[in-house]
Amino acid sequence: MKIRAMAAREARGPLAPFEFEPGPLGKEQVEIRVASCGICHSDLSMRNNEWGMSAYPLVPGHEIVGTVTATGAEVRGVRVGDRVGLGWYSHSCLTCRQCLSGHHNLCGSNEQTIVGRHGGFASRVRANWEWVTHLPDALDAGKAGPLFCGGITVFNPLVQFGVRPTDRVGVVGIGGLGHLAVQFLNKWGCEVYAFTSAGAKAKEALALGAHHTVDSRSDGAIAGLKGALNFILVTANVPLNWGAYIDALAPAGRLHFVGAVLEPLAIGAFPLISGQKQLSGSPLGSPATTAMMIDFCARHGIAPVTESFPMSKANEAFAHLESGRARYRVVLQNDLD
Amino acid sequence: MKIRAMAAREARGPLAPFEFEPGPLGKEQVEIRVASCGICHSDLSMRNNEWGMSAYPLVPGHEIVGTVTATGAEVRGVRVGDRVGLGWYSHSCLTCRQCLSGHHNLCGSNEQTIVGRHGGFASRVRANWEWVTHLPDALDAGKAGPLFCGGITVFNPLVQFGVRPTDRVGVVGIGGLGHLAVQFLNKWGCEVYAFTSAGAKAKEALALGAHHTVDSRSDGAIAGLKGALNFILVTANVPLNWGAYIDALAPAGRLHFVGAVLEPLAIGAFPLISGQKQLSGSPLGSPATTAMMIDFCARHGIAPVTESFPMSKANEAFAHLESGRARYRVVLQNDLD
Repeated sequence: MKIRAMAAREARGPLAPFEFEPGPLGKEQVEIRVASCGICHSDLSMRNNEWGMSAYPLVPGHEIVGTVTATGAEVRGVRVGDRVGLGWYSHSCLTCRQCLSGHHNLCGSNEQTIVGRHGGFASRVRANWEWVTHLPDALDAGKAGPLFCGGITVFNPLVQFGVRPTDRVGVVGIGGLGHLAVQFLNKWGCEVYAFTSAGAKAKEALALGAHHTVDSRSDGAIAGLKGALNFILVTANVPLNWGAYIDALAPAGRLHFVGAVLEPLAIGAFPLISGQKQLSGSPLGSPATTAMMIDFCARHGIAPVTESFPMSKANEAFAHLESGRARYRVVLQNDLD
Repeated sequence: MKIRAMAAREARGPLAPFEFEPGPLGKEQVEIRVASCGICHSDLSMRNNEWGMSAYPLVPGHEIVGTVTATGAEVRGVRVGDRVGLGWYSHSCLTCRQCLSGHHNLCGSNEQTIVGRHGGFASRVRANWEWVTHLPDALDAGKAGPLFCGGITVFNPLVQFGVRPTDRVGVVGIGGLGHLAVQFLNKWGCEVYAFTSAGAKAKEALALGAHHTVDSRSDGAIAGLKGALNFILVTANVPLNWGAYIDALAPAGRLHFVGAVLEPLAIGAFPLISGQKQLSGSPLGSPATTAMMIDFCARHGIAPVTESFPMSKANEAFAHLESGRARYRVVLQNDLD
């Protein structure tokens, strides 16, 4: 049975209806009937071939929620009928040291859902069983997709780097990722500082769980936090005054990047040394950390704030995302079949 | 009783004999009769007022070993006659959160042994009791001084950042700090890679405990270690190709600075994000970590490799250090009284 999708035929080209024959299901593969699929900036980057690794026709979409319709003979832990989610990764080697240590997200030969294969702007999508995560009834299938990329990207560092409920934590950039980070950190027990340059978002950040807001571009406001923050999570992908942010860290504090700031970070070694400070980055989390995040969301009522478009209107949805007006994540609802 | 010392009278000036009256001993202060004192590059920087915080006459010296000759009424844990060591810090507030957490080295109001007070190029030196560390009989009073600055600077990050005996660890720069780091890491159980641009030091690094040597300025040699190292400890204070070093880190690896590289580190966020890598710095360790290091040295027979000069020949010793020919730390033996 053919899969119906929305695909770009060339870099920067519009999405158009596209049908393809997926071939036989792999022995360890799961096929998911897509309910909805969030849109991430990476989908735009891939459509535009900004990273030089796009293949066309390109079917974007890696924030997928749906129901399992078929499983290969050797699939483990997932059954037909299960409600599941799928993110940026669709297969890991399962045999390297990283995989065997539970760090599948750091596997050097990971398959990526929309790199050289077709993603979730489609009626169905496939993935190896290990990256297919169960979705509990408490989470809305029409809204939960963004957890599987934007959500896990900001949840993972809280786990990996031991953020403590007693910490003061800054979130820089209140968008698709940041609005989830604020919610996570509030329920994590932290004192949450939302950094944004958009005045309108400051009030919304407070409603999402931030305890304080700070103008992310005001050196004076940041200087007022000198030595205050244990952890600063940067979801923005624009250059900011990183030296000022490092000064805002408490001794032994961490400035952590999940937004792919392209300009090199010009960092002085001396402030790191004198304050025993750290700078780091991380990609999405492992399957186990993803499942942990989903449990946390279900238990605390955390959900992405979304706007819906029919999947057939993916171009309009992309345009809305590019306008910067999305609050906070656009989710496509499958109307292709 | 006056203290005899060697002091600089002005920035970049030579050291000359200098006597001063130390005044009454503080209630929590310890007076130490100096046996020997190592020379650190920071002593040169302070003599030259490179950091703008030197006061003259300036008595350098903060790698001190000696015997306690007097104690104030409220001193704890140290008695007259004890063999002890003293490093960069001579007093912490003991009341801030960092001090109360055992992180006295991160106290914001630390007194520093040669900043606004007189250091160890002297017959006697004073410090508050909490920074005075016992020296076991197994350690040579004529050679152990460099452990209290150079040694603890490279030992501290192994403790703070959880270096594991199963790790592959690089040490960049084989000098006063690096030659101690190589010894520590060998006994820590690690596979040790010594990075140096000085061919002669490569062979010596192997004798000190390195298992491999790498040309620190060869991009090709570093590229050959792609993804191999869990931890890289930078003791050099010159700019190197940091991007290449980050590529040499394994997933979740750390590039750690203890050498005060003055040029900003131009670091790409993307390699940090994709490999979940970290960049960090640290100062000297706390009193508890210093004591832990001293125990480790005594148990494993770790000692600085030193060259001795009489303290009265401090200018010649400085010149030897500046020539780059010191192997690996110069120690002044007190001949002032």
